[in-house]
Amino acid sequence: MSAAEPIISSRQTHKEINGITTQVVCTEFSNYIFIVITQYGKIGTLVSVTPESRCDDFSNPMFSTKVLLGKDEPLTHVCGKNLGTFVSQEAGNRPILLGLALKDSSVDAIKQMKELIKSCKVW
Amino acid sequence: MSAAEPIISSRQTHKEINGITTQVVCTEFSNYIFIVITQYGKIGTLVSVTPESRCDDFSNPMFSTKVLLGKDEPLTHVCGKNLGTFVSQEAGNRPILLGLALKDSSVDAIKQMKELIKSCKVW
Repeated sequence: MSAAEPIISSRQTHKEINGITTQVVCTEFSNYIFIVITQYGKIGTLVSVTPESRCDDFSNPMFSTKVLLGKDEPLTHVCGKNLGTFVSQEAGNRPILLGLALKDSSVDAIKQMKELIKSCKVW
Repeated sequence: MSAAEPIISSRQTHKEINGITTQVVCTEFSNYIFIVITQYGKIGTLVSVTPESRCDDFSNPMFSTKVLLGKDEPLTHVCGKNLGTFVSQEAGNRPILLGLALKDSSVDAIKQMKELIKSCKVW
């Protein structure tokens, strides 16, 4: 980021996942990476995915999820952790802000969504 | 939005406001307009600005603000209401999600930020 052109890096793409149009927007802020994955066009449920101070057996930090906006359901935390953790780890454990509006939360769909997020890498 | 190209409309710009580089990113989702105004590069404090069912004397809805992430300070609500309400009104009273990371919250700065937001109109 130069002083003359302070551009906030943002990329988006879309793909059919199991027949459902899925849009992804990734935007990099200095403290958060903001990712929206939507199958409704909505911003959806907002979830923060944050590394904790405690680590797992491999010295990787554990991650906690918190619903900031929308329905606080167990599945949201599972999907949020699944979709946010790998980005955070790739980005030096930066916190992730996720917008999730999913029709299909199957394991297979989530796997394809991860690939879609990777194709919009801004971190 | 055509079926073949489901693009999420997003625009960004930047400007010096009272000597401080100010970045704005506006993204349109079907249920929220997401606007980040940052003088730190951070996503900042997340505030929702939502029209209420009760109206003012001119039959315009009143707006409520809620801090979703970050410090919940009175000034944040004032700035959030000031920067979010006019967008919501222009966009048919759609709710606004604001990210605010401001060094300068003066009345004059907020006025210039409104113009900057208008130059990134996605609604």
